[in-house]
Amino acid sequence: MQHKKYKFSTAATDFYFGGSFSQLKTIIDQKATVLLTDENVFNAHSKKFKGWRTIVIKAGEAYKIQSTVDDIIDQLIDLETDRKTTLVGIGGGVITDIAGYVAAVYMRGLKFGFIPTSLLALVDASVGGKNGIDVGMYKNMVGVIRQPSFILHDISLLKSLPDKEWINGFAEIIKHACIKDAAMFRELEANDLSVYQKKPKLIAALLQRNAQLKAKVVQEDEFETSVRRLLNFGHTLGHAIENQYALMHGHAVAIGMTYACHISAQLSGFKQTDRVVKVLEQYGLPTYMSFDRQLAFDLLKMDKKREKKEMNYVLLEKVGKGVVKSIPLVQLEKIIQALPK
Amino acid sequence: MQHKKYKFSTAATDFYFGGSFSQLKTIIDQKATVLLTDENVFNAHSKKFKGWRTIVIKAGEAYKIQSTVDDIIDQLIDLETDRKTTLVGIGGGVITDIAGYVAAVYMRGLKFGFIPTSLLALVDASVGGKNGIDVGMYKNMVGVIRQPSFILHDISLLKSLPDKEWINGFAEIIKHACIKDAAMFRELEANDLSVYQKKPKLIAALLQRNAQLKAKVVQEDEFETSVRRLLNFGHTLGHAIENQYALMHGHAVAIGMTYACHISAQLSGFKQTDRVVKVLEQYGLPTYMSFDRQLAFDLLKMDKKREKKEMNYVLLEKVGKGVVKSIPLVQLEKIIQALPK
Repeated sequence: MQHKKYKFSTAATDFYFGGSFSQLKTIIDQKATVLLTDENVFNAHSKKFKGWRTIVIKAGEAYKIQSTVDDIIDQLIDLETDRKTTLVGIGGGVITDIAGYVAAVYMRGLKFGFIPTSLLALVDASVGGKNGIDVGMYKNMVGVIRQPSFILHDISLLKSLPDKEWINGFAEIIKHACIKDAAMFRELEANDLSVYQKKPKLIAALLQRNAQLKAKVVQEDEFETSVRRLLNFGHTLGHAIENQYALMHGHAVAIGMTYACHISAQLSGFKQTDRVVKVLEQYGLPTYMSFDRQLAFDLLKMDKKREKKEMNYVLLEKVGKGVVKSIPLVQLEKIIQALPK
Repeated sequence: MQHKKYKFSTAATDFYFGGSFSQLKTIIDQKATVLLTDENVFNAHSKKFKGWRTIVIKAGEAYKIQSTVDDIIDQLIDLETDRKTTLVGIGGGVITDIAGYVAAVYMRGLKFGFIPTSLLALVDASVGGKNGIDVGMYKNMVGVIRQPSFILHDISLLKSLPDKEWINGFAEIIKHACIKDAAMFRELEANDLSVYQKKPKLIAALLQRNAQLKAKVVQEDEFETSVRRLLNFGHTLGHAIENQYALMHGHAVAIGMTYACHISAQLSGFKQTDRVVKVLEQYGLPTYMSFDRQLAFDLLKMDKKREKKEMNYVLLEKVGKGVVKSIPLVQLEKIIQALPK
């Protein structure tokens, strides 16, 4: 197990790469810990949870809502949890988002950590301290930014991960490559999903590279006033269509990235849309979609990245170099209406 | 209007003493602001709210719950509020607690400020960044610590404040005197409620002195690992009986202080219980009460100040000098069972 510590402006996160679930009790005091997971993860790995106090919730984005938070808080009270308790989220992005949020608000803040079980949570959701829940159609409308105390990578948990979840995770990996890492983009072009699925060392290294890429961006700009905004590449339009069409997050982001490439071609001289589209397809991700342009724009208007009458939109100058452009809403509406189908 | 800035470890709060509601628009941009208030305050001062986007909720501690937060968030979405919006809570402690909490979690954090309209909010609830809501019988079980951007004192709003709310506020003023300010305790002994109600300059000075006393304690220890704990004097037992018997917060704290004096006599050699009891009575506050000892202890066990099998309890060594003692729960249970009625 390899240990790396990242200090953020408000806290520090210990990363344990190449670890295993069974090492959790060497990191924290079992008696002062509550685990939070979902039914899928719990049923797939029930033996690992023996001896741990565990709260199990229903699986899926549909449960990333306030009423689930209310239920978890009631259970924490029943368990007589105090302020010295650590809450550990074991699951995909929905679990890490909810666990981080509950830990932030219960008793004005418990310590928390994660064992991410999905590719997406390993490379993205678990890192950087953003947490929260959805409100109606609006993704992550409520939440705070607060860093986890630790993140433990156990690649063996990926064995039970369905193919569609691998694909989901590769959307964020491709995103990282597009905005920040042209060399990784070339590695992705040279391989495909089945290669990574067959080679544990190769995927472990890729996951660590992505977690560290994101941790460094967050270190530089924890509260998203500059470089962290780049991580929203593909997410502005992506979030607007995700809940509306019940898309997987990675699918929504892939579609969002495709259209962000087209907007980049118009506004920042980007010329490599075909390369991005090809890599997305290579990893089983969707690219173009016939969605309701008006409804998408109306939802997008409420995105957290809006500032009054302008939207901060992430574009590409070239593969490996993302930029943030402030686009007036009136102009953005026209651009979205005219996107290819 | 007198302006003082207090820097905390995570943020700064601008205090405006001796100001007025009408000066609010000189502090913030009216177009990028939403006010939050309750029906009582809104009806008593409806003219002052003209021209401001305002969310009005029902008045009272019974509404300091998650479903009220959910309603406010829905209204913020309907108002197309973005991240650059400032939320201003105008009301008593319930409003400042909810406004601070909603602002902390909506879109992962809006700026917020307060115009406190009750004595209690002026000297206590508005200062220090603690916010939150109740869960069932448990007070402030959910919330975060986050500092307001500004606090504006407008003493003229106290004109419509009923006597019982004056009494409520004096409980926290007496608390401050007990733990930190023997000179202020003597000032309180020399006066009574009607003196302060008749002399605007005297009450304004007392309110400023208390707000500053609290701000300094919070500056020293924002996340309550040391001196800030003193502010919980009277609150551990107080909270345990407050919701159970639907007591006013100040009444519950006054009773909590009375019994904390008795516990102090046993554990920290305190000899001035009579002086504290006399001042509480002088300001119309209750002292002894026949409550269900066992139920109170069972609720108190879940207090946020518990650490595993011990409770951090605030005691007095003498008037003006509070101390924190860690009391084992088994011992505390016996002490509470044996308290005088």
